[in-house]
Amino acid sequence: MEECQPTINTGLRGVTIASTKVSDVIGDEGKLIYRGYLVQDLAANAGFEEVIHLLLHEKLPNNQELQVLDAMLKAERSVPDEVIAALKTRPEDALPMDVLQAGVAMLAHHDKEVRIQNREATYRMGIRLIAKLTTLLAAWERIRNGKEPIAPDNELSHAANFLYMRSGEKPDPEMVRFMDAALVLHAEHSFNASTFAAREVASTRAHIYAAITAGIGSLSGDLHGGANVRVMEMLLDIASPDNAEPYVNRILDEGKKIMGLGHAVYKTDDPRAGIIDPMSRRAGEIAGDTKWHEISKILEVKGKAAFKERKGTDIYVNVDFYSASLYYSMGFPVDLFSPLFAISRVVGWVAHVLEEQYAEAAPKPMLYRPESDYIGDYCGPETCTFEPLDDR
Amino acid sequence: MEECQPTINTGLRGVTIASTKVSDVIGDEGKLIYRGYLVQDLAANAGFEEVIHLLLHEKLPNNQELQVLDAMLKAERSVPDEVIAALKTRPEDALPMDVLQAGVAMLAHHDKEVRIQNREATYRMGIRLIAKLTTLLAAWERIRNGKEPIAPDNELSHAANFLYMRSGEKPDPEMVRFMDAALVLHAEHSFNASTFAAREVASTRAHIYAAITAGIGSLSGDLHGGANVRVMEMLLDIASPDNAEPYVNRILDEGKKIMGLGHAVYKTDDPRAGIIDPMSRRAGEIAGDTKWHEISKILEVKGKAAFKERKGTDIYVNVDFYSASLYYSMGFPVDLFSPLFAISRVVGWVAHVLEEQYAEAAPKPMLYRPESDYIGDYCGPETCTFEPLDDR
Repeated sequence: MEECQPTINTGLRGVTIASTKVSDVIGDEGKLIYRGYLVQDLAANAGFEEVIHLLLHEKLPNNQELQVLDAMLKAERSVPDEVIAALKTRPEDALPMDVLQAGVAMLAHHDKEVRIQNREATYRMGIRLIAKLTTLLAAWERIRNGKEPIAPDNELSHAANFLYMRSGEKPDPEMVRFMDAALVLHAEHSFNASTFAAREVASTRAHIYAAITAGIGSLSGDLHGGANVRVMEMLLDIASPDNAEPYVNRILDEGKKIMGLGHAVYKTDDPRAGIIDPMSRRAGEIAGDTKWHEISKILEVKGKAAFKERKGTDIYVNVDFYSASLYYSMGFPVDLFSPLFAISRVVGWVAHVLEEQYAEAAPKPMLYRPESDYIGDYCGPETCTFEPLDDR
Repeated sequence: MEECQPTINTGLRGVTIASTKVSDVIGDEGKLIYRGYLVQDLAANAGFEEVIHLLLHEKLPNNQELQVLDAMLKAERSVPDEVIAALKTRPEDALPMDVLQAGVAMLAHHDKEVRIQNREATYRMGIRLIAKLTTLLAAWERIRNGKEPIAPDNELSHAANFLYMRSGEKPDPEMVRFMDAALVLHAEHSFNASTFAAREVASTRAHIYAAITAGIGSLSGDLHGGANVRVMEMLLDIASPDNAEPYVNRILDEGKKIMGLGHAVYKTDDPRAGIIDPMSRRAGEIAGDTKWHEISKILEVKGKAAFKERKGTDIYVNVDFYSASLYYSMGFPVDLFSPLFAISRVVGWVAHVLEEQYAEAAPKPMLYRPESDYIGDYCGPETCTFEPLDDR
């Protein structure tokens, strides 16, 4: 029986699956827009809490609105003692993303609203998730290093409190500014894989903890949240600015890619990279070692030129390119890079789950149930005849 | 600036996203095919372990192949003491699906192969997941009831051992047969929402535990794994066979749906329903109470007739319709229905993750990165001008 061949939309590239009011990525123009605002304007002028308000409430807050949100977030920072007890059963060499995933799943067990399906309850659970994810991460970072977790300090902003819960010391204001800007810059990026995973789970009417757990799982993949880890591994491998230009030539000779150069969507420099670049430089100066930024800069300049010369086309830096050296100079171990991404992107995930489950604009989302093309030609065009075990 | 309106593929209905060799659902003919075999042939003739082999190895095993797989599964049944310790920190009223999700995420912390990306390691981790998920579920069911978990008994089959680990007693052979058949029947169903979630996470090259955790999250939604729960709640609400026909008329008068009637894909009776129907009847007889099956039967017969009379079209029973009364008569509390689905469907998820990450047939899968249509008209066609906090 002849059948027409369906078009296979591999990776769903170019397939529009939903309307969204959360964000827009205009790749050709190098624009990333959170609910109407350019991300660089937000990173330069707004704190992370303001951006949380923007993404969840569709507007930047006035002073009073910001105070309300800030108070809610601060009230929700603590994680239950039972979750800390469970974290203490975890092996110290567990991947931090996997611990975060388990931690979020466990937070659901303690939320009395988890059986309620309406926008208000989902919003409150979303605020809890945003507030508690940094606490979980800071707690695990201490536990795996044999230290007791530190309780949140409600005198501090979200970014400052995270740094404080990790180190136990009041953080340097410049470091707080870098952390805050990094949180703003990574908070949202349209239907990337982790956001799509969160929305997919939410589309079954599963609660928001289940959706965010899936988002963390998706972000843990090498092709997604793991990208800035690959950049840092490259920088560590290069080790010295002197080796950077030879590295560029060798990698391109081998037909390989320079990590952090190139992006699926942007056809210009990633608008976030230009903001992180000087922060990475300054964080290196504070740490007393600027070589990671220097290597990055050489890779960018020489890598772009060499790529252009060989391929005849331009290549651009993406967000991971300078965030790797920024985080490293801020003293974060490489395996916390993806979790740092998660504690920011959770805001976008929450905004998207709210939109997936409670969007008012048509077309409203519905349970994702794609088609597949069965190519299982095990017994020709017919189904197989079952034969008993002893006859096989 | 005028732009053309993109087509929004809401819920991805009718959009073919991948080639697959795992299974086929032919809705018009009421056929569900696992790697060439009709599901009813498998349920009638093959044990769950044989079906695991079929789904993961693309062929039914001979005796020796079955022994190898069976030995692997049995060797992997235990879960680490540290995971049991963590489960004991969980509140007894946690949703069992949420506990399973946390449990799977924690299993990743103990797997030494979790950083390895190749088909063989992923297959072994998949076997561990299939083996341990029943152990996790049985352990949690005992812990939340104040009992100690029971160690697996390797004299017993997968299905029998699950029943044993739950009750502590050697299970009745008929109950084992029902459990085994239910596991076979729910093991795989193409690109349903939970399988798609697992594949989506796997497409980022995240490890299989992260992917299965997402699958569990997706299955926990009311529109997916929660469907047989809704059926049982309906049966409990009806309470007596005498109330069944009036219920049908009332529900249809109100323009509502009878739970378990109707399916997005099948345009005939679900091929699995006809197998579960007599098992549900017999399980009721063994339990000394056949009323849940009786109510179901009246709902099916009267519901189909009334629907046809009112709407002029046929409606059919789906897999959830008789599995609800089967599980209930087997003594499972309603909140274990979705977890029972999960301990079976995990096999399909594993088969799909292997295909997503290691398919050899073109077109090979790639990271899912769909498009969205930005309708955020916050400041008209322009981006918004940032105003400082005090000016808002």
